[in-house]
Amino acid sequence: MTSTQVLLDSLLTHKSTINLASTEQKNQALEAMAHQLEIQQDLILAANALDMKAAKQSSISTVMLDRLLLTPERVQDMATGIRSLINLPDPVGLVLEETIAPNGMVIRKRTIPFGLIGMIYESRPNVTSDAAALAIKSGNAVILRGGKEAFHSSQAIVTALKSGLSQAGIAPEVVELVQDTSRASATEMMTAKGKIDLLVPRGGAGLIQAVVENAIVPVIETGTGICHVYVDKDANLDKAVSIVLNAKTSRPSVCNSQEVLLVHEAIADLFLPALESALAGKVELRADVAAMTYLKEALPTGDMDFDTEFLDYILAVKIVKDVAEAVAHIGQHSTGHSDAIVTENQQAADYFTQHVDSAAVYVNVSTRFTDGGQFGLGCELGISTQKMHARGPMGLREMTTYKYIITGDGQVRN
Amino acid sequence: MTSTQVLLDSLLTHKSTINLASTEQKNQALEAMAHQLEIQQDLILAANALDMKAAKQSSISTVMLDRLLLTPERVQDMATGIRSLINLPDPVGLVLEETIAPNGMVIRKRTIPFGLIGMIYESRPNVTSDAAALAIKSGNAVILRGGKEAFHSSQAIVTALKSGLSQAGIAPEVVELVQDTSRASATEMMTAKGKIDLLVPRGGAGLIQAVVENAIVPVIETGTGICHVYVDKDANLDKAVSIVLNAKTSRPSVCNSQEVLLVHEAIADLFLPALESALAGKVELRADVAAMTYLKEALPTGDMDFDTEFLDYILAVKIVKDVAEAVAHIGQHSTGHSDAIVTENQQAADYFTQHVDSAAVYVNVSTRFTDGGQFGLGCELGISTQKMHARGPMGLREMTTYKYIITGDGQVRN
Repeated sequence: MTSTQVLLDSLLTHKSTINLASTEQKNQALEAMAHQLEIQQDLILAANALDMKAAKQSSISTVMLDRLLLTPERVQDMATGIRSLINLPDPVGLVLEETIAPNGMVIRKRTIPFGLIGMIYESRPNVTSDAAALAIKSGNAVILRGGKEAFHSSQAIVTALKSGLSQAGIAPEVVELVQDTSRASATEMMTAKGKIDLLVPRGGAGLIQAVVENAIVPVIETGTGICHVYVDKDANLDKAVSIVLNAKTSRPSVCNSQEVLLVHEAIADLFLPALESALAGKVELRADVAAMTYLKEALPTGDMDFDTEFLDYILAVKIVKDVAEAVAHIGQHSTGHSDAIVTENQQAADYFTQHVDSAAVYVNVSTRFTDGGQFGLGCELGISTQKMHARGPMGLREMTTYKYIITGDGQVRN
Repeated sequence: MTSTQVLLDSLLTHKSTINLASTEQKNQALEAMAHQLEIQQDLILAANALDMKAAKQSSISTVMLDRLLLTPERVQDMATGIRSLINLPDPVGLVLEETIAPNGMVIRKRTIPFGLIGMIYESRPNVTSDAAALAIKSGNAVILRGGKEAFHSSQAIVTALKSGLSQAGIAPEVVELVQDTSRASATEMMTAKGKIDLLVPRGGAGLIQAVVENAIVPVIETGTGICHVYVDKDANLDKAVSIVLNAKTSRPSVCNSQEVLLVHEAIADLFLPALESALAGKVELRADVAAMTYLKEALPTGDMDFDTEFLDYILAVKIVKDVAEAVAHIGQHSTGHSDAIVTENQQAADYFTQHVDSAAVYVNVSTRFTDGGQFGLGCELGISTQKMHARGPMGLREMTTYKYIITGDGQVRN
C-alpha cells in the first residue's frame, strides 16, 4: 500500500469520532486547534523558512513567494479564522423535514456530515488550516493535499491542529496531510471511490480542470472566475464607473474580480472615455474594434482575451448592440461565477437576471461581493461554479449531506 | 457533427423557452402531453409491436419482454402519471433565502431549473414519458437516450409528447430522443461538458457504473440497492418476520427490496426457523455456516452473495454477534440505498441510525418504502445512492439548482 492509501484507511477507521461529535466537542476542538497554532508558532515559522528557502532557489515568482510566506501575523490570522467558526451554527443534525406518513411511520430528513472530504490545493499554507477547521466544524474527516512548495509549512500546521484535536478528545487521525506530493497521490484521491465522499480542488484553472476531468469520486468544481460587467444603455454612468473600478481594481488577483467589460453601443461614447479617465492608466484595456474608437490607450484584443482569467490589471472590452447580445456573450464565455448588469431599466435587469446562468447575478452591484462572508455564511470552503449540490460560496451547510431516518412499529408496504 | 451533437445544439438554442416557462404554461403542456399520448395511442402501440417483434427474434428474456411491452392500459398509465404532476407545486422560482446586507444590497437565493438534463436508460418505454414529464414540470429541457430495444416505442412516445408541447406554446425542441443507440451517443452525452447540466443514468448496475466512471458532466448515481435488514437480539419476532417477508417478497425486482438478512446470534435459533416457515419455500435462502444450523433448506453462501443485487426470490443470510458487527457488515457491503434494523432497544436503534451511512435508514419498518411517492415527493426521477446534491428519492425539487440574485444601487466592496 502507498502512504496515501494507508492514510485513507486510517481516516475511514477514525472518521466516526468526528462525524458523530457533539457541537460542544467540535467547538472545543476548534479552540484547542487555534491555541496550538499560537503555541507552535515558532515551529510553524521555522518550517515555513525551509519552504521559502527552497522556493527562492527554484526561481519562483514574487507573487507565489508572497503566497507561501508565513509571518507571526499570518499565523495569528489562521488562529483567528479558526475561532471565528466557533460561534457559527452547527450544520449537522438539523431536521430539514419531518413528516408522519398515513401508516404512522415518521420520516425525518436530517443533515449529516459527508464523512471524509478531500482537498487538493496549491501553495497557500493557510488553506491547510482553513480547510481543516471547516471540516471539523462540519463534522467531517479531511485529507489534505497541498502543493509541494508548502509541504513543510502544511506539515507543521497539521501537527499543531492534531495536538488541538487530541486535547479536545477527538482522534487526531481525522485530519491528515498527504505525504506524497507527486501526481500519484492526487490520482489516488481522485479515484478513492467509496472512501472520499467529496473532493474539492482549489487553485488555478489547470488544477481544477484536471480534477474535474479525472475524478471518479464526487467533485465540486470551484473558483475560476471570468466575471463580466455589462453597462446597459440605461446605466447611471457614475454607478457604472464606480462598479467597474471596484470590480476590476479593488483586488484583481481574486476570482470574483472583473475580467470583461461589455458596453451597450448607445452609451459607449459617453461611458468609455469616462471610465478610461477614472482608471487613470492603472489598467491595461484590450478593446474590440468598435470600442477602440472611444479609448485613447487601449490595445486591440487578442484571440483569447474574452476567455482568460487575467487575475491582473487587465480588462477586455467589447461593444454590444443590446442586453441580448451581452447575455449571449456571457453565455458563451462566462465561467458561471459572477456577472453584473448596470442599468436603471427594470426590463433589462430582469432579462439579465433571468438569462445569465451564473452562480451570482448582480444588478447595479460590484461582482466583488461573491464571498461566503459577504453572503452571510460566515466562512467559505470555496466558490462553486457548478450547478450540482452547491452554487456560489460553499459554507458549512454545503459541507453536509442528509439522510432519511424512518422509524415505525412494524410497518410494511402493500 | 453527429446527430447527437446536432440535437444538443438545438436543445441549447431552445432550452430557455422551458427554463423560463410559467407554472401555468408548464401545467398546460403536461395536460396536452398526456392528452396526445391518449390520442396517439394506436401509433404508439404499433411502434411497440415493431420493437416487440424484433425483441422476440433476438431471444430476449421473458422479464425483458414484459418490460418492453406496451398495452392500452400502460399507455393510459403513462398519461395518468403525467397528469399527476400538474397539481404538484412548481419547484422553480422559490426564494430559499433573502437577506438585506448592511450596505443595503438585497441577496436572494432562488431556485432555477438545471437547464438541460440528460437521461440514459434501458428498455422500459414508460421511462421516456416519465422523465420527459418530470423535466417539463421542473423547467428543464431533456435529452433522452433509451435502450435500442425500445427505440420505436420511445420515438412514438416522444412524437406524441412534442405535439403536446407545441399545442401549449412551448418549443417541441426541448424534449429530444437520441437517434443513435450505439455506445457512441452515450459517450457524447457523458462528455457534453457545458451543455448537459445533469446526467441521470437509470438501469442495471453495469450501466450506472459505466456512466459514473466515464462521465465528465455532473452525474447522479442512482438505483442499485443491496438493502439489508438486521434483526437485533431485542427484536419483536412477529414484526421481524413480517418486515423481512415484505422487504424480500412484496416486489423482489425493485431496488428497495431486501437482499441480505443479518441476524443477532442470540435470537437466531428462534427467528430463523420462524422466518423459514413464513417464507414457505418461496425464497431461496443462502446462509453462512452459522445460520445453516437453524435452517432446513438453505444453501451455503457463495463468494458474491453478500455483494449481489439479486432482484429475485433469493436472500443471503448471515449471523452477527451484535449491532456493531451488523453495522460494519453493512458499511462494507451496502450500496447506500436502504437498510433497516428491527429492535425494541432504543440504544441499538440509535447506534444503527447514526452509524449506517445510507440514504434511508429504517427502524422497525420495511425497506420497501424508499420511494418518492411514499416519502411525500409525489413522484421520482430515480433514487440517488450518492451523497452529493440529492440522496434517496429525487423529486422535482432535486431537479432544480439555485442562483444568487443580488440587487442594489451602486454598491461596491471596500
